[in-house]
Amino acid sequence: MSVLNTTLKPFNATAYKDGKFVDLSDADVKGKWAVFFFYPADFTFVCPTELEDLADIYPTLQKMGVEVYSVSTDTHFCHKAWHDTSPAIGKINYYMVGDQNHALSNNFEVLREGVGLADRGTFVLDPQGEIQLLEITPEGVGRNAAELLRKIKALQYWVSHPGEVCPAKWEEGAETLAPSLDLVGKI
Amino acid sequence: MSVLNTTLKPFNATAYKDGKFVDLSDADVKGKWAVFFFYPADFTFVCPTELEDLADIYPTLQKMGVEVYSVSTDTHFCHKAWHDTSPAIGKINYYMVGDQNHALSNNFEVLREGVGLADRGTFVLDPQGEIQLLEITPEGVGRNAAELLRKIKALQYWVSHPGEVCPAKWEEGAETLAPSLDLVGKI
Amino acid sequence: MSVLNTTLKPFNATAYKDGKFVDLSDADVKGKWAVFFFYPADFTFVCPTELEDLADIYPTLQKMGVEVYSVSTDTHFCHKAWHDTSPAIGKINYYMVGDQNHALSNNFEVLREGVGLADRGTFVLDPQGEIQLLEITPEGVGRNAAELLRKIKALQYWVSHPGEVCPAKWEEGAETLAPSLDLVGKI
Amino acid sequence: MSVLNTTLKPFNATAYKDGKFVDLSDADVKGKWAVFFFYPADFTFVCPTELEDLADIYPTLQKMGVEVYSVSTDTHFCHKAWHDTSPAIGKINYYMVGDQNHALSNNFEVLREGVGLADRGTFVLDPQGEIQLLEITPEGVGRNAAELLRKIKALQYWVSHPGEVCPAKWEEGAETLAPSLDLVGKI
Amino acid sequence: MSVLNTTLKPFNATAYKDGKFVDLSDADVKGKWAVFFFYPADFTFVCPTELEDLADIYPTLQKMGVEVYSVSTDTHFCHKAWHDTSPAIGKINYYMVGDQNHALSNNFEVLREGVGLADRGTFVLDPQGEIQLLEITPEGVGRNAAELLRKIKALQYWVSHPGEVCPAKWEEGAETLAPSLDLVGKI
Amino acid sequence: MSVLNTTLKPFNATAYKDGKFVDLSDADVKGKWAVFFFYPADFTFVCPTELEDLADIYPTLQKMGVEVYSVSTDTHFCHKAWHDTSPAIGKINYYMVGDQNHALSNNFEVLREGVGLADRGTFVLDPQGEIQLLEITPEGVGRNAAELLRKIKALQYWVSHPGEVCPAKWEEGAETLAPSLDLVGKI
Amino acid sequence: MSVLNTTLKPFNATAYKDGKFVDLSDADVKGKWAVFFFYPADFTFVCPTELEDLADIYPTLQKMGVEVYSVSTDTHFCHKAWHDTSPAIGKINYYMVGDQNHALSNNFEVLREGVGLADRGTFVLDPQGEIQLLEITPEGVGRNAAELLRKIKALQYWVSHPGEVCPAKWEEGAETLAPSLDLVGKI
Amino acid sequence: MSVLNTTLKPFNATAYKDGKFVDLSDADVKGKWAVFFFYPADFTFVCPTELEDLADIYPTLQKMGVEVYSVSTDTHFCHKAWHDTSPAIGKINYYMVGDQNHALSNNFEVLREGVGLADRGTFVLDPQGEIQLLEITPEGVGRNAAELLRKIKALQYWVSHPGEVCPAKWEEGAETLAPSLDLVGKI
Amino acid sequence: MSVLNTTLKPFNATAYKDGKFVDLSDADVKGKWAVFFFYPADFTFVCPTELEDLADIYPTLQKMGVEVYSVSTDTHFCHKAWHDTSPAIGKINYYMVGDQNHALSNNFEVLREGVGLADRGTFVLDPQGEIQLLEITPEGVGRNAAELLRKIKALQYWVSHPGEVCPAKWEEGAETLAPSLDLVGKI
Amino acid sequence: MSVLNTTLKPFNATAYKDGKFVDLSDADVKGKWAVFFFYPADFTFVCPTELEDLADIYPTLQKMGVEVYSVSTDTHFCHKAWHDTSPAIGKINYYMVGDQNHALSNNFEVLREGVGLADRGTFVLDPQGEIQLLEITPEGVGRNAAELLRKIKALQYWVSHPGEVCPAKWEEGAETLAPSLDLVGKI
Repeated sequence: MSVLNTTLKPFNATAYKDGKFVDLSDADVKGKWAVFFFYPADFTFVCPTELEDLADIYPTLQKMGVEVYSVSTDTHFCHKAWHDTSPAIGKINYYMVGDQNHALSNNFEVLREGVGLADRGTFVLDPQGEIQLLEITPEGVGRNAAELLRKIKALQYWVSHPGEVCPAKWEEGAETLAPSLDLVGKI
Repeated sequence: MSVLNTTLKPFNATAYKDGKFVDLSDADVKGKWAVFFFYPADFTFVCPTELEDLADIYPTLQKMGVEVYSVSTDTHFCHKAWHDTSPAIGKINYYMVGDQNHALSNNFEVLREGVGLADRGTFVLDPQGEIQLLEITPEGVGRNAAELLRKIKALQYWVSHPGEVCPAKWEEGAETLAPSLDLVGKI
Repeated sequence: MSVLNTTLKPFNATAYKDGKFVDLSDADVKGKWAVFFFYPADFTFVCPTELEDLADIYPTLQKMGVEVYSVSTDTHFCHKAWHDTSPAIGKINYYMVGDQNHALSNNFEVLREGVGLADRGTFVLDPQGEIQLLEITPEGVGRNAAELLRKIKALQYWVSHPGEVCPAKWEEGAETLAPSLDLVGKI
Repeated sequence: MSVLNTTLKPFNATAYKDGKFVDLSDADVKGKWAVFFFYPADFTFVCPTELEDLADIYPTLQKMGVEVYSVSTDTHFCHKAWHDTSPAIGKINYYMVGDQNHALSNNFEVLREGVGLADRGTFVLDPQGEIQLLEITPEGVGRNAAELLRKIKALQYWVSHPGEVCPAKWEEGAETLAPSLDLVGKI
Repeated sequence: MSVLNTTLKPFNATAYKDGKFVDLSDADVKGKWAVFFFYPADFTFVCPTELEDLADIYPTLQKMGVEVYSVSTDTHFCHKAWHDTSPAIGKINYYMVGDQNHALSNNFEVLREGVGLADRGTFVLDPQGEIQLLEITPEGVGRNAAELLRKIKALQYWVSHPGEVCPAKWEEGAETLAPSLDLVGKI
Repeated sequence: MSVLNTTLKPFNATAYKDGKFVDLSDADVKGKWAVFFFYPADFTFVCPTELEDLADIYPTLQKMGVEVYSVSTDTHFCHKAWHDTSPAIGKINYYMVGDQNHALSNNFEVLREGVGLADRGTFVLDPQGEIQLLEITPEGVGRNAAELLRKIKALQYWVSHPGEVCPAKWEEGAETLAPSLDLVGKI
Repeated sequence: MSVLNTTLKPFNATAYKDGKFVDLSDADVKGKWAVFFFYPADFTFVCPTELEDLADIYPTLQKMGVEVYSVSTDTHFCHKAWHDTSPAIGKINYYMVGDQNHALSNNFEVLREGVGLADRGTFVLDPQGEIQLLEITPEGVGRNAAELLRKIKALQYWVSHPGEVCPAKWEEGAETLAPSLDLVGKI
Repeated sequence: MSVLNTTLKPFNATAYKDGKFVDLSDADVKGKWAVFFFYPADFTFVCPTELEDLADIYPTLQKMGVEVYSVSTDTHFCHKAWHDTSPAIGKINYYMVGDQNHALSNNFEVLREGVGLADRGTFVLDPQGEIQLLEITPEGVGRNAAELLRKIKALQYWVSHPGEVCPAKWEEGAETLAPSLDLVGKI
Repeated sequence: MSVLNTTLKPFNATAYKDGKFVDLSDADVKGKWAVFFFYPADFTFVCPTELEDLADIYPTLQKMGVEVYSVSTDTHFCHKAWHDTSPAIGKINYYMVGDQNHALSNNFEVLREGVGLADRGTFVLDPQGEIQLLEITPEGVGRNAAELLRKIKALQYWVSHPGEVCPAKWEEGAETLAPSLDLVGKI
Repeated sequence: MSVLNTTLKPFNATAYKDGKFVDLSDADVKGKWAVFFFYPADFTFVCPTELEDLADIYPTLQKMGVEVYSVSTDTHFCHKAWHDTSPAIGKINYYMVGDQNHALSNNFEVLREGVGLADRGTFVLDPQGEIQLLEITPEGVGRNAAELLRKIKALQYWVSHPGEVCPAKWEEGAETLAPSLDLVGKI
């Protein structure tokens, strides 16, 4: 069965954000667009480049009404310690969620069975908490924040413009398509 | 549980390719890199722009040893008829697979329950038939073949260069990282 | 157990009719006599000759209060595209129902398991939605609309004339039989 | 699931044929084309007209290599007594099978639950014992032996001419179709 | 567990009686003494001699308030046809019940599994519908109506004379026994 | 399901016969014709008249190769004590079986549930140990040894004369019937 | 689990007492002290010596408010016949219960499985119907009524004198013990 | 089901005997006659009087080949401590078994559920380890070693004298009975 | 799952305390701090040294509001007898609980399966009856009351000083730690 | 059931030790005495004081043949990072095991359900991998390495000196006890 349009399951966790430990639940997440950005482990290698890349688009996403949650199976204590010691991680302003009880990694089905670490999985949720798009890459392949931004823009456009759809490689400002009976078999 | 590294399940289908109907099974797919490119339906709107975008990178993918299979729940008869009548679809040289029995859409978990149509899901498999990366977008958001190409290149690089990993937004020719104990907490 | 007198199960589908896409459910079907006419696939060979044959008797059936629904596991997009390009199919005025989710083919038990295509099955339902007669032929054997018309006429006669039955090869206007104790063992 | 191509189940019965009681099993039936012709009851009204209509085409069917078995839930004793006393039934030369244990009516799913009588169901089996076509009409609607003959001829033609199919209302000697890729979407 | 004193189960059937077809249910049977007289099949050999033997005592039984129901797995149509053609059967005035749905034969546990015919079983029921005595003989051994009459008379005597019992081979008018503590061990 | 032709189940019991206690099992019974003659209780009223009636035909049955076993849920001690004190019972030479463990009464399904006493049930078994005929009468109605003898004679005649059957109220020496196709519907 | 203090289960039976047959149930037993005295069978050997021994203390027990019930799997008819013919049994005035349906023997768990006879089991119940003491001996070992009387006297004493207990081999009138903390480890 | 003739279940325990701790299992018990003598608790009141009473007959039992095992849910440490401090218990020479794991009390079904103490239960086992007789008295009623001795003597006599049984209140040297057919109903 | 913070289960037991037998249940325990101190058996070797060691700190614990319950599977009778005879045990003033029904040993999961004795387990419960700390040592290793006292003091300090925690080997009066975000990674 | 003497379950993990990442399994642990020392989380407060306390006795334990494994649900990457940045943790030379897959915390039943952190649990295993003693304290109460050392010394002494046991608060060099029958009830 398709995972699209399934709803964020209940969870409770503690995150590190802006020098504080904050409690977080599914109720806090709903009501805004959200990006859940899973990665394997603190103090490793590909992860910080991805997290830094994501930090660069965070101000843009905030303006678009999109909140960002990075998640690994490390505790919020580790996130804080990493933030203190790593220059790249130190730039982060979004939520760094501690998933040491594996609840979120399990709910999004990115937990590597028997390993206790999450895949590189990105999930975009609408304000109703429903998954609208997703991407998963393996251990050794970093994601691309620019492409994520393109897709979120297309997603928000489509949702707010009934009767229009965004074609392949659509960029903000480009033309969209308006499906109609006349177009059947004509594209 | 993570879907990464799960193996292509057995299937039998008929595809349209280069003016012929050809039988296809999981055994035919294994042994090469493969892209499975699901879309909702023939004779619709976003789908042809995506399929044309994919057709543009097909020669490059072929040189990289990657075969391409587009899949919808339409029959191979429909694919042929669409190929005959649509200028965009007429350019396609890769396999257009008929999944009217829903086997592939079910195996890759992109079948919309009760609807009988597939999501926009892309899956890259290694020659062992294991899923290495994936992406799913909704009805109204087209994918981007250029980003797919970037990720497949990173994937092939990583697999063929043990001890190196590709950081965020890595492009062909850019630097990679070599994980080591000394790097722990240093990035 | 006999399938006669079993009732049409709930369904939802989209059909192509008279240049429009229309939604259709079991509630829309009940209340009139109905013919469900299954066939394997759009853009094939025997199917269009049967659909054309059926189109010829459609005006007569309409006068008799009988609606007609052709059904395959293709989408309504395909039906529209086929209607646009085939001279035979272009004549059709009845409902062409898209059963790409297999609901109707399953409900009438004509889905070829593992194939995803329907048999050539004809079902006549009374206004209560109960199956009154049926016929199934294989892939390579076309049906005969004239015989279907004969049987529907006999069926309507029998239902509206209590105490009379239509003997073998009865044609409209021919004599019927009135079962009685005296006839036992006399025919 | 489609009933076509399901195989004749094992059975044992006694039939009346040519003034004798003969034992009959599925093994006796296989190896030739066969028609199973179910009807509700001996000594009734529509049934004898159908059985007589069938008797008329029996010589032709025999020449085509097709054996005929009429079946009701009456005993072979009743069939014999009916044959002795009814002028119409007295003409019958094919097998009149006693199904008082309901085995055949159950196997072909034409037994009316709680009634103990069979529907008017016709089944044509190939020499492998697989159902190739079927027809069921209600209590008050007689079948038509001429149309049955037409369908059996088309069936035998199709089976013996690979690469050809019989279109709608095909009659012996008429043109057939040869499906090919070029015909897709052209009929 | 003993079958005595078990109650007639619900049933619906059609019987032939005095030139008419009449509907019959358990409710019709209760309220009077009843004999259910099962036999294998119409148009056979031992059966008519038994049915004729039973016909001879029918007037006496009627005077005693006992109704008679002969039952086979043939239809009421067959019973009527047999009654029309057989001199012995033509004498019958009691109910000839059609049990082609096997309900009664099953309820009284006289159906020969896999054969579809009933044993030669006689059951006498009191006006409450409870079985009071029974007898079963095989295919080749006819019953004896005189002995049945003797037992029904003894049964009615016993039921209507509390405190008396009918000894072995008791005939109407002979002495009965009155059980009492003094008789214990004295007979 | 019919009880005819079911086989004697294994049992072990002790019987009183000719002034001795003898052990008895199903193996001892098989190999000869056998009558199992159940009755409610020693030291009661109808029972001794039946047992005496049966004692009168015992010599004849012995000559016919038929052994006799009377059975109640009393012990063999009781049977012996009753035989010692009752003039009627003192005449008995056949086996008086103690069924205080209810095994035989249960196997023949004549045990009155919750009462611990057997019905008046007679069962005739062939040398293979299969039940061929049976009779059950209630508490207050004695059986008739003469009719039992008539039925056993008919049974033995039928079994030893293939192709012949004994009609209603047949007595030794009377005519039998030879079933044939020509007789169908003629009796 | 201990059987002491379990309660008499519901039962219905007929007993022989003082020349009469009387119905008996658990409701009749409760409200008084009771002895249930099981034995294997009437008309045997050890049993009558035990029953006579018990008969000798019956007047004493009656004065103590204790009723006596002897029980075997024989019927009340057998008990009556035995009482008539045996000098020892003829002396009995207590209840001789017929347990031919095995209910009591099963409830007290003294039924020999597969044999249908009871053990030599004695059970003393208080007026609440709870088992207070019990004894079981094998086939060949007779019980001792005097010891039973001793134990019932001790039991009644203990129940009616809270704070006192009867030591080993206590006889009526002998000293009892009064348990107290000071006695711990002192006896 | 009767508990007589059930076999000693496997167990392991430690006992105090003659100033030593000895291990004990079912294998040690089998091969001799045995008395298992359960009581509630060390350092209580009725128990020591019973244990002393039993100690008095222990030499006689030893001569008869009977071993004695007293059992409570106390440990062997408690038994030793009690033996050291109590004059009555100090006389004991038989096995004092520690059943603190409740195995024996459970196996003999004398454990008071939820209390953790055993009933006053005596069980006599033959050398095959099968229970031959038993007695259970409540908390406040002491047993009688003399009566136990009488029953064991009768039991050993019966077992060693086939064809003889010991009547009620039999004492060593008294007459026994020899059951025979002639005695049936004569005692 | 962690056993910490699980709640004391319901129980009923009798204890020896200050020369009296007192009933005790979970309701009596709750409302105060409590130590459950399990040991294998009365009258053994390590146990009395531990119980004496515990007796020494009992006055201090009482002042701290902590009640003490020693528990073994011996009865309260044994505890009383041991208290009477052992100089070390004679000093004890806390509750000595009899757990001969194994309820407490089972609830705290310290019962040695098949042995019927408890481990050397110490459990400290808060006034809500929740386990706050525990320790288990084997048969041959005695515990240390001083260390137990240290831990109970730390526990009470922590519970009554929110925001402070007691570091390793903390002794009463020593410094504690106050966890704060600034301390993360600084200790 | 008691947890003592249960065996270390299979596991696989990566540990940080002496500047290296090393793989570790149950097979590596067995063969030596072992301490598993669980704590909630890296970068927290009580934990480092305990780990430093343990580091102080590590050389002594190594001389005694005891290996030490500290375990939290953090990764080995975190352990390395903590070791790099914390002065207290930097002193550690024993194994710091990463249990991010929760396997060890689950096996030792110290995982806080729904929290994903371990309790402060210490487990001492013998070279056979069996748990010999354990201790668990809550979040806010630090353990005491000195007491742990005392208990391990007593444990090793007891195991290597059969016939001796270590009494309460035993310290190395102090007297032990030799259990014997004579000591029962004397301590």
